[in-house]
Amino acid sequence: MHEGELTKERLLEEATKLVHEKGFGATSLTELLTAAGIRKGTLYYHFPGKDDLGLAVLQRAKTKFLAAIDEVLTAPTPKEAIQKFLEFALERHRARRFVGGCLFGNTALEMSDANSRFAESVGHLFRQWIDKIATVIAAGQEAGQFRRDIPAGDLAQVIVSTVEGGIMMSRLRKEEGPLKTCLDCLKTFLCANVR
Amino acid sequence: MHEGELTKERLLEEATKLVHEKGFGATSLTELLTAAGIRKGTLYYHFPGKDDLGLAVLQRAKTKFLAAIDEVLTAPTPKEAIQKFLEFALERHRARRFVGGCLFGNTALEMSDANSRFAESVGHLFRQWIDKIATVIAAGQEAGQFRRDIPAGDLAQVIVSTVEGGIMMSRLRKEEGPLKTCLDCLKTFLCANVR
Repeated sequence: MHEGELTKERLLEEATKLVHEKGFGATSLTELLTAAGIRKGTLYYHFPGKDDLGLAVLQRAKTKFLAAIDEVLTAPTPKEAIQKFLEFALERHRARRFVGGCLFGNTALEMSDANSRFAESVGHLFRQWIDKIATVIAAGQEAGQFRRDIPAGDLAQVIVSTVEGGIMMSRLRKEEGPLKTCLDCLKTFLCANVR
Repeated sequence: MHEGELTKERLLEEATKLVHEKGFGATSLTELLTAAGIRKGTLYYHFPGKDDLGLAVLQRAKTKFLAAIDEVLTAPTPKEAIQKFLEFALERHRARRFVGGCLFGNTALEMSDANSRFAESVGHLFRQWIDKIATVIAAGQEAGQFRRDIPAGDLAQVIVSTVEGGIMMSRLRKEEGPLKTCLDCLKTFLCANVR
């Protein structure tokens, strides 16, 4: 990477940290410039407006997250893949002591009604995430590892929704209990009616 | 109510609408004054600071919501009470065409890490909500209507988390599918292992 790319990457990294904890609206450019140690002109050189910066933060986080999901879902069996995913969800937020929550869930709540470009970008992330889970669930149903009375796509929708709700509750209380309970119940739910 | 009380109520009502769609941070006092048709001095007479107004909005919404939950959970049997609650959750957000989402979930995500007074207030709401559901679930377990292999408090935690996640997803897509799928799966989950 040459210097311009390095600066851009540092900007995105600092912006991601701020946005993750405070949201897009509450993150000020002044604060970001101080955190990244760069001048205003440099910021505007890379990102003409605040929305451009915000959407770049989101795009970068999406790419990283989907790559992490692909890795997590790589396992000898579908059941192990889902088990790994549920552990990943807990570990990821436990490591952050439940500060910040899920950047995508936060963005969904902040932007769903306010900014259609952000809403579309985060909507796309959730569709991809749910599709990846659904593919594994379908394979697990085929292999007799998950319940078959509910379509794989619906199960995947419930998994992602419940994980998001659990993250919200654990973040609010700053304890892992709510998310862990949600993940345990998802496992029980997925494996019911399987013999 | 005398005139001062009426003005205060109108202020809170308009503030609630704005906060519900935009969040606390993005709601400007100027916009609120225009919407409520009152002068700045009148606002400061009732609420010395923006946080006082925000917390009053939250307190008013909490009181209304918990009263609605009490009414919804009043039914001949625990199973019917939970069924009524799940229908209430869908109907409430369908009526708003999935705009605004859940004020408490929004506040949890906006304020969990940013403002401890808001975080405590909304944390208290979620605890009360979960407790009310848990009481009904426990009665239903006693009556053989709900699964008994998971504690009532855990099931209540999962119900509220999944409803919150489902609202988030339906709000993002502006369609009822995700929330409806979540509610259907909750019902299946609660009534499993019951004969």
